[in-house]
Amino acid sequence: MGLATMKEIAELAGVSVATVSYVLSGKKKVSPAKRERVLNAVELTNYKLNTIAKSLRTSKTEIIGVLVEDICGLPVPEIVDGINQMLSDSGYQVLLNNLQLLNKLYNQYEQLSQYISTINRGIQLLEDARVDGIIYIAMHDRRIDGIHQPVNIPLVFAYANSDDPASLSVSYDNHFSSYDITQHLIQLNHKRIALIAGHTNSSATKLRLSGFRAAMNEAGLHVPQEYIRWGDWEFHSGLEQTNMLLSLKIPPTAIVAMNDVMAAGCYAAAYKRKLSIPEDLSVVGFDNQPVASFLYPNLTTVALPNKKIGLTAAKHLLWRLEGREKIPANTTLPCTVIVRDSTAPPK
Amino acid sequence: MGLATMKEIAELAGVSVATVSYVLSGKKKVSPAKRERVLNAVELTNYKLNTIAKSLRTSKTEIIGVLVEDICGLPVPEIVDGINQMLSDSGYQVLLNNLQLLNKLYNQYEQLSQYISTINRGIQLLEDARVDGIIYIAMHDRRIDGIHQPVNIPLVFAYANSDDPASLSVSYDNHFSSYDITQHLIQLNHKRIALIAGHTNSSATKLRLSGFRAAMNEAGLHVPQEYIRWGDWEFHSGLEQTNMLLSLKIPPTAIVAMNDVMAAGCYAAAYKRKLSIPEDLSVVGFDNQPVASFLYPNLTTVALPNKKIGLTAAKHLLWRLEGREKIPANTTLPCTVIVRDSTAPPK
Repeated sequence: MGLATMKEIAELAGVSVATVSYVLSGKKKVSPAKRERVLNAVELTNYKLNTIAKSLRTSKTEIIGVLVEDICGLPVPEIVDGINQMLSDSGYQVLLNNLQLLNKLYNQYEQLSQYISTINRGIQLLEDARVDGIIYIAMHDRRIDGIHQPVNIPLVFAYANSDDPASLSVSYDNHFSSYDITQHLIQLNHKRIALIAGHTNSSATKLRLSGFRAAMNEAGLHVPQEYIRWGDWEFHSGLEQTNMLLSLKIPPTAIVAMNDVMAAGCYAAAYKRKLSIPEDLSVVGFDNQPVASFLYPNLTTVALPNKKIGLTAAKHLLWRLEGREKIPANTTLPCTVIVRDSTAPPK
Repeated sequence: MGLATMKEIAELAGVSVATVSYVLSGKKKVSPAKRERVLNAVELTNYKLNTIAKSLRTSKTEIIGVLVEDICGLPVPEIVDGINQMLSDSGYQVLLNNLQLLNKLYNQYEQLSQYISTINRGIQLLEDARVDGIIYIAMHDRRIDGIHQPVNIPLVFAYANSDDPASLSVSYDNHFSSYDITQHLIQLNHKRIALIAGHTNSSATKLRLSGFRAAMNEAGLHVPQEYIRWGDWEFHSGLEQTNMLLSLKIPPTAIVAMNDVMAAGCYAAAYKRKLSIPEDLSVVGFDNQPVASFLYPNLTTVALPNKKIGLTAAKHLLWRLEGREKIPANTTLPCTVIVRDSTAPPK
């Protein structure tokens, strides 16, 4: 290493050239913090000189491809954030490929299977860029089948799962989250609890419905058929279905909305009828979107472990790259019920 | 790459193995003709090596580095989306580096200057990855000075601007957006209009305040000192400052909140006092966050051109890479007032 590079390293590490020299020669003691900075800088500068040579030598680019169905999808930025954190701690960079499917699909997530060729092209692009591994981030949790398997490159699904035995997946638990938040209402002594569901054919809807029913059954509470309302994940369906529920002869005292946006619709319906939340009606949501903290009263909801999904997907990918055995094929992370001000015992 | 492949390439190119090695490592000069033959042979023998061979030949990687202060920052995913769209249409890929500054800074955006070394390290990493150009996305619009200028790589700031004459910037117009939404209230015949501002030292606050004052002055409307309230961009400051305003002897008939989150706080304060929006009080926000469509009544606000900022930043970067002259150094895009249901004439 020439003097010029020593100077570069010193600048990068924010230390004097002498300090760099002490660390490299071992001639003098240097504080662990400074030493760490110098060694990081050495690594960086070597990396700069050798990126291409190194990739030819080891067949590793130290780049992980992240394929996102849409960067603007609800959970996606936080998942990317988790991946970034885990990978940058391990010296990897992220090559992001954004399929931009959100505007094409709006909220008809089940039609994603029509975009298999778009997805496959995205995987191919990352393969061509010689990434060491690929993390696929879905924008709506579901099973993903029938896509192109990259050759000799590990693939991890985040916010999704797959039947493919070669790939790994990390997602969250819909059934038990829904069970938990329904239990929260039961423990407050609600007996008449209604549900506003998402699209009937969504796997999230099915699992959240089964969790709701499990909690109600366990508590011996009857769910009249008219208490199960079908929404479409959007504000207006929350508003309309709440209007239906509040017009019933025996209206519910609490409503489980399958997402925060439909819960915001419940608020609007209650507000129009001059009902107070939670005094007249308890409402819970799902997702812990920012809106949950901005509604008045603040919304009790389920927080998804988005960042942890990203961290875990990246960790499992690194394990696979290291050749570690016994990596769990399908990981389901728990969610957290966030109790705020929209729930109280019935009057 | 193993020796066998080097040998294969050498045979195909009609050169020695040493020559192949020199070309690939860049360690020794090789005549352009021989170099070309080697690179062609590399391309023929191994599709996987396309990227590297290509980058050696043209010094272009066709990768654009995107450095984001935080992928979870409010406008960031949409800006990335715009960049992705423009670049993928042009055959470029995106290498994303996420500095993850949001948790460190919370909403104290002005302290970002303390993280210059983190930012510089991020730029260095992208340079090391041999990107063709860099787009820097801020999470709060402001002037960015004093950061490391990448050598021979164009830099474009998105959602920020810079004094550096070598770089380009694309941002949006705070002053006129604030002027426009204040005018909307004036046209509805409001005379008593109050303002809830963000942090005093934020450049966005200053520009939005000047836009508000310009509209009020132009209309010959007086702004009592107690109508200018200082918030901190968060829900609770919107709630508290609205409480202050509604307790005044002569309360305002309309409130301009400098962001949607503080506007949500206005709603909570009005709701607590059993006031109806917009009948008793008109409220406007800024940002057009999802919450604006989920509040009841839906919030009149200012939509920022986030996706267009991304598209334009990428377009200007491509122009610079093509060597085009006369690219605007600092572009300020207009915002749009979105009139919803939270504004009406005063009673």
